Amino acid sequence: MKLDDDIRAFLDAPRGADLATINPDGSPQLSVIWYARRGDEVVVNTTAQRVKARNMDRDARVALLVGDPKRYVRLDGDARVVATGAEALADIRAHAVRYDGEESAARLTRAVWSTQDRVTYSIAVRRVYRYGFEES
Amino acid sequence: MKLDDDIRAFLDAPRGADLATINPDGSPQLSVIWYARRGDEVVVNTTAQRVKARNMDRDARVALLVGDPKRYVRLDGDARVVATGAEALADIRAHAVRYDGEESAARLTRAVWSTQDRVTYSIAVRRVYRYGFEES
Repeated sequence: MKLDDDIRAFLDAPRGADLATINPDGSPQLSVIWYARRGDEVVVNTTAQRVKARNMDRDARVALLVGDPKRYVRLDGDARVVATGAEALADIRAHAVRYDGEESAARLTRAVWSTQDRVTYSIAVRRVYRYGFEES
Repeated sequence: MKLDDDIRAFLDAPRGADLATINPDGSPQLSVIWYARRGDEVVVNTTAQRVKARNMDRDARVALLVGDPKRYVRLDGDARVVATGAEALADIRAHAVRYDGEESAARLTRAVWSTQDRVTYSIAVRRVYRYGFEES
């Protein structure tokens, strides 16, 4: 679906976000995660071995809550792999620049991420719930 | 399970929290919620009609993420109803005092909550994941 302009602008600030996925036993899994908007979708990046990655590979349905208790957006959607290898490494580096700056991104890319099996997922949004926005 | 002292102290500050429950179709549901620690459990309060309440009544498994991206605690557990009626109304009022102060709590209790069918759930914790804490 198409995201409204104010939702796009809200997502474009590097905000705290929690991602919910579904465990193999059907219970909920929650993680703190960085994200970035890409058109009308939102991308997240993790390692292929993490529980949330394996969960999304098995059941694409996710929920992402972005913001803080006073003002937030919840996106319900479906996640699919859009990058692996060098491209996914570039994605996590770009997320780190966005959230923590160039120096931290360079350091973590070198020390941690370059040896990992990174994966980028893009979330196609099915539903948007907003809270704390001005009425328009 | 028994919560460590530093986890108890962390939960005792009124922090932002996201609650994940499971929808009837097996997809994840995410909500921003107030909570309070009660012994080794954590209580949350909502209305009986809300999706998250109906979800917890059907499938007790929840995940609660408390804090911010720099320092947070994730609790995986099972939710059960521990109060309804006047007792549950007193609980949401106490949460509001904790988060927003006495004046806001009194106003919202009068204007909103007193006409609702409130329910308090207590979450028995199965697992704790912590991030950003000092090594002890």
